[in-house]
Amino acid sequence: MNDQTTSVAAILDAAKTAGRDSLSAADARALCLAYGIPVPDEGLATSADEAATVSAEIGYPVVMKIESPDILHKSDAGGVVVGVDSEDAARAAYDQIIANATAHDADAAVDGVQVQQQASGDLEVIVGAVTDPSFGKLVAFGLGGVLVEVMRDVTFRLAPVAAEDAAGMLTSVRGAEILDGVRGQAGVDRAALAGIIEAVGKLVSDHPEISEVDLNPVLASPDGAIAVDARILLDFDQQPARYRPGQEEILTAMRRIMQPDAVAVIGASPEAGKIGNSVMKNLINGGYEGEIYPIHPRAEEVEGRKAYTSVTEIDGQVDVAVFCIPAPLVPRVLEEVGQKEIPGAVLIPSGFAEVGEEELQQQALDVARKHNIRLMGPNIYGFYYTHKNLCATFCTPYDERGSVALSSQSGGVGMAIIGFSRTNQMGVSAIVGLGNKADIDEDDLLTFFEQDDNTQVVAMHVEDLKDGRSFAEVASRVTKQKPVVVLKAGRTSLGARAARSHTGALAGDDQIYDDVLRQSGVIRAMTLNDMLEYARGLQVLPTPQGENILILTGAGGSGVLLSDACADNGLSLMSMPDDLDAAFREYIPPFGASGNPVDITGGEPPTTYQNTIRLALEDERVHALVLGYWHTIITPPMVFADLLSEEIERARGKGIHKPVVASLVGDVEVEDAARKLMEHDILAYPYEAEKPVAVLAAKYRWARQAGLI
Amino acid sequence: MNDQTTSVAAILDAAKTAGRDSLSAADARALCLAYGIPVPDEGLATSADEAATVSAEIGYPVVMKIESPDILHKSDAGGVVVGVDSEDAARAAYDQIIANATAHDADAAVDGVQVQQQASGDLEVIVGAVTDPSFGKLVAFGLGGVLVEVMRDVTFRLAPVAAEDAAGMLTSVRGAEILDGVRGQAGVDRAALAGIIEAVGKLVSDHPEISEVDLNPVLASPDGAIAVDARILLDFDQQPARYRPGQEEILTAMRRIMQPDAVAVIGASPEAGKIGNSVMKNLINGGYEGEIYPIHPRAEEVEGRKAYTSVTEIDGQVDVAVFCIPAPLVPRVLEEVGQKEIPGAVLIPSGFAEVGEEELQQQALDVARKHNIRLMGPNIYGFYYTHKNLCATFCTPYDERGSVALSSQSGGVGMAIIGFSRTNQMGVSAIVGLGNKADIDEDDLLTFFEQDDNTQVVAMHVEDLKDGRSFAEVASRVTKQKPVVVLKAGRTSLGARAARSHTGALAGDDQIYDDVLRQSGVIRAMTLNDMLEYARGLQVLPTPQGENILILTGAGGSGVLLSDACADNGLSLMSMPDDLDAAFREYIPPFGASGNPVDITGGEPPTTYQNTIRLALEDERVHALVLGYWHTIITPPMVFADLLSEEIERARGKGIHKPVVASLVGDVEVEDAARKLMEHDILAYPYEAEKPVAVLAAKYRWARQAGLI
Repeated sequence: MNDQTTSVAAILDAAKTAGRDSLSAADARALCLAYGIPVPDEGLATSADEAATVSAEIGYPVVMKIESPDILHKSDAGGVVVGVDSEDAARAAYDQIIANATAHDADAAVDGVQVQQQASGDLEVIVGAVTDPSFGKLVAFGLGGVLVEVMRDVTFRLAPVAAEDAAGMLTSVRGAEILDGVRGQAGVDRAALAGIIEAVGKLVSDHPEISEVDLNPVLASPDGAIAVDARILLDFDQQPARYRPGQEEILTAMRRIMQPDAVAVIGASPEAGKIGNSVMKNLINGGYEGEIYPIHPRAEEVEGRKAYTSVTEIDGQVDVAVFCIPAPLVPRVLEEVGQKEIPGAVLIPSGFAEVGEEELQQQALDVARKHNIRLMGPNIYGFYYTHKNLCATFCTPYDERGSVALSSQSGGVGMAIIGFSRTNQMGVSAIVGLGNKADIDEDDLLTFFEQDDNTQVVAMHVEDLKDGRSFAEVASRVTKQKPVVVLKAGRTSLGARAARSHTGALAGDDQIYDDVLRQSGVIRAMTLNDMLEYARGLQVLPTPQGENILILTGAGGSGVLLSDACADNGLSLMSMPDDLDAAFREYIPPFGASGNPVDITGGEPPTTYQNTIRLALEDERVHALVLGYWHTIITPPMVFADLLSEEIERARGKGIHKPVVASLVGDVEVEDAARKLMEHDILAYPYEAEKPVAVLAAKYRWARQAGLI
Repeated sequence: MNDQTTSVAAILDAAKTAGRDSLSAADARALCLAYGIPVPDEGLATSADEAATVSAEIGYPVVMKIESPDILHKSDAGGVVVGVDSEDAARAAYDQIIANATAHDADAAVDGVQVQQQASGDLEVIVGAVTDPSFGKLVAFGLGGVLVEVMRDVTFRLAPVAAEDAAGMLTSVRGAEILDGVRGQAGVDRAALAGIIEAVGKLVSDHPEISEVDLNPVLASPDGAIAVDARILLDFDQQPARYRPGQEEILTAMRRIMQPDAVAVIGASPEAGKIGNSVMKNLINGGYEGEIYPIHPRAEEVEGRKAYTSVTEIDGQVDVAVFCIPAPLVPRVLEEVGQKEIPGAVLIPSGFAEVGEEELQQQALDVARKHNIRLMGPNIYGFYYTHKNLCATFCTPYDERGSVALSSQSGGVGMAIIGFSRTNQMGVSAIVGLGNKADIDEDDLLTFFEQDDNTQVVAMHVEDLKDGRSFAEVASRVTKQKPVVVLKAGRTSLGARAARSHTGALAGDDQIYDDVLRQSGVIRAMTLNDMLEYARGLQVLPTPQGENILILTGAGGSGVLLSDACADNGLSLMSMPDDLDAAFREYIPPFGASGNPVDITGGEPPTTYQNTIRLALEDERVHALVLGYWHTIITPPMVFADLLSEEIERARGKGIHKPVVASLVGDVEVEDAARKLMEHDILAYPYEAEKPVAVLAAKYRWARQAGLI
């Protein structure tokens, strides 16, 4: 512990001993100074004369404020006088503040009046910190005054905040350009602001008992920034540390659970319609080639497999036990699973915390912890791992292998994943139900998918993250390699958090999720359909090599809609080089529009599509292609689908892998064309202009944060 | 002309005579005073001594500003000094301003220095006006300072602005709550601000030669508002008045065009594959029962109908002529159409303005105007009017009758409309291609659909409105009766408008469209798919009787997503009355969640869905129902579809007509269930949670602006 933390720890210990839940202004100031946060000169006056003396030492003008542990909102109590510019004024202000404070609360303990240098700056900002039950310590930065009050223009990052992230926060607020100076003002000192952000992040990380920090306002000027007012709130009741095994330990268990060589089905049943029967059938009919051990109290065999009365009777090693028994029986049978040293249990049954049986769930978890069993669920449909032909679920089998892993916290969403995947023949590596998340949660899954070569994209439906900080840590690492899509549900239905500070009141749950997910490189999907379409598209689209998007369209109207969609989704239309423009003009009618979009016009034969698509694919300056096909008699939908497939195959043969998405407008035949193109791993959507571009943009969002473009 | 307008007209005439394109500060001030806009006291000084005298008369502090027609940006020229608080300061400021101005531009004509009362107020706002080529005069209101500079928080309305609309502008800006006072400030005088907005609207409406107005800043305080600085720009080159027949005249022609008893096909062809042949076949095969007259230079008959060499040879009355001949021949044949007194021509051919042949298009239009022919197109697929079995188009016939009329400016979008409609069996009344819009545009169509009993919903794809003002007028009227959906394409691709004023620079095209469409009661669709889904859904959904939405779900996860979607779309979840809550609890398991969403849980049989849906339909306090169905073995998708259809039929039989939308999650069978429900006019979407709610919200947007809830 260095001097800095030692002095701060002493102040915090004193506050704890005194039973305080906030620091005095003087102590808050001392913490700021200890962490290098600039604050105004100041002194405490306990008489009108002393106020005059202290003011003269600091230099006029000064601000004078009541100093009382019982008065948190000083202005409301008439406890603040600004612009004090003489000794007489200082005396008068002292008397007035004391009188007002007494009138406000006769019982308030008054330590005196704080006299402070009246700092000046061009711009008010706010820097603060909050403690979130899932994410822990977060640092906030916002533009002050009306912008933060009315527009709630504030951004959050996990603490501590690295220098680079602190600088990034300054550009993340919507009104960021204000920092560069508007209406003729000079820009403010970004380094000074970033320094304060870093310092606050370090302060709350070093001292977890600091629950909230409010530096409000921080006055920023071209040559510095100063925290005019600091409030620091304390909470000495620390959350217990979360259970968090090491990465290798997680992996060892998750590998055996997700890719087991032997599965026990607890409650396997010979009776059709029972969950324990469906699971058995799905395992067998899904083509799982490992060992399957049905566990049944009496049966000799279930679905043709020898049955056991307990897992402890099985000779061989078992990797995962799938539970299909009523909830109340689970803890007892988990003991047997523990004795057998099975590392994972899939708890399909409901009847736990979701129906108010928190205690039963905790019992199961206690048994699991004792025996080092990881629990999936309870209250889930189970899971699929297609590359092992594994359908450890009572839902119908799914066998379209691919490279997307999906998870859902809700069974309903899980079913939508299965239905959507099936109807769109989406290749998946895994579909996992997480349900109540008594134990295994998204960061465990991500840790597995990170190293799973069968998985290239991860998409997750999340209602809450039990441990948002761990998720963010793992996601930050995984998203450098593989796209991670998150549909965060419940973003608008959550109640306001209890908060005593200004920063706390600004910290809406969804704002925190949004900022942290972005910071972690996660692609956020805002609707269920977006999550599903991103999952489908991201595995298919090659990674773009640059930002130059070219729109090539047979319908001028589609070109306009596609341009809108690009702008809305943050994609940049390539500025067309003269030589490429001339090359396109060779192929398109004189009245067609070159530039970007390239409008080949509606009456053109297949060769025009062919030639222009080939040109765009082969020109290295074009990094991604957005196609607008228009159904005509001369180039019917299936002809277009065939020629586009051929051109893309041809390009792939030459080592050219560019993202291509297509919007198809026309009569119903465009639906068949879209399906055919999808079969060739080309993303095509009928009657849509926005969706193909949104999916392409999701790929770009991933590639940018991964540093690939 | 009253005194107000007379005095203003005199000032504007003088400016015109002097060849000025902006008013002097003194003249701008005079206009403000003439229209009752409060301005600071002021006077002009032409010497330092006079500056001192004038300042003393006005009272300190004063602001002093250079007065020169050649210096528009006074601050940049060092031409402004604020806070002048004594005679000496006034003299010094005068000399300094003159020196700075000379240094800035030695050739600038200097009229003197304006001395102005230094107004004070709590809040800076901006009130202005611009001239838009499509919408004409628009008034702008924005929050001043950084909010307008950085956040572009500004809103527009067509001028003149009625008192109610002026008050509405104050609540339309994102930071509206600032007007109520933040951080302990008192709210500002809204009536005073609304008065200034109204006055600016009247000023520019009375005097069209005023092209832009900038009252910036207007200082607002709790007891008034004052325009501190006024800039008024002039443009004496007025746009020619638009061709705009009266409503009855439009209707007479449009009725004959859209619901003709006799159609001539110019360029009817016996040769399969030709457009003139496709049109003939579509008319005949579509089942059109009126007269069809093919026009062909030589043929005796075409597709079994007697052919004519010219429309002039036809004996009977003809209502509309469909052109299928090359563009260059159009003007000449239009003459014959005129001689025959046919009121409408549908110009399918391309080869006009869209390929640079503006002159040819103008020729056609000139002929049309001469003979009072209304032109649809050119460069279109034609149009459908299903209730006459009319397919006046070369596209495949469409015969699913319904009550939605759709139009598109682009042929590609038109084809998407046809494909989407067909695959979804969407009933339509009309599909119309507008193409180049040489003549007939959206307001003509709206005028027709307004009184067409076969049409209850209108959906339009619009790239530009040739006469936005007329469209807004007609739409404001129509939307009180029928929902109008507009997909405005090209919202992001337009260049910045040429603007010399601050307000002008803020007037992004899309912002204007957005504000005016909302002002007109139009439901704006942001994507092609949204337009199509709104079109499909709005005709099916009954009008809600109030704002109480109830979510009823079998999947808790769907309930969360549906709640998110409601909040995102501005729908209010009903706060659940105790007695209704108790009634739901009778039907759902004890661990199900009542409140809103009502979560009946996933394992329930059909009767639970049935009972709870019936309860929600029959309780008068519930105004709209959002259902979340979850695919289970105990209540399979088709069983749910049947029971929901039955319950809604049952309710309809009792005279209960509430909007119901459903989100279906599950395996692929939910797609069939959704189709079946759609056939019963119940909106159901598989694998979606956001879309059903967005469509419901579109109905609410319409009902609210029409004053129905």
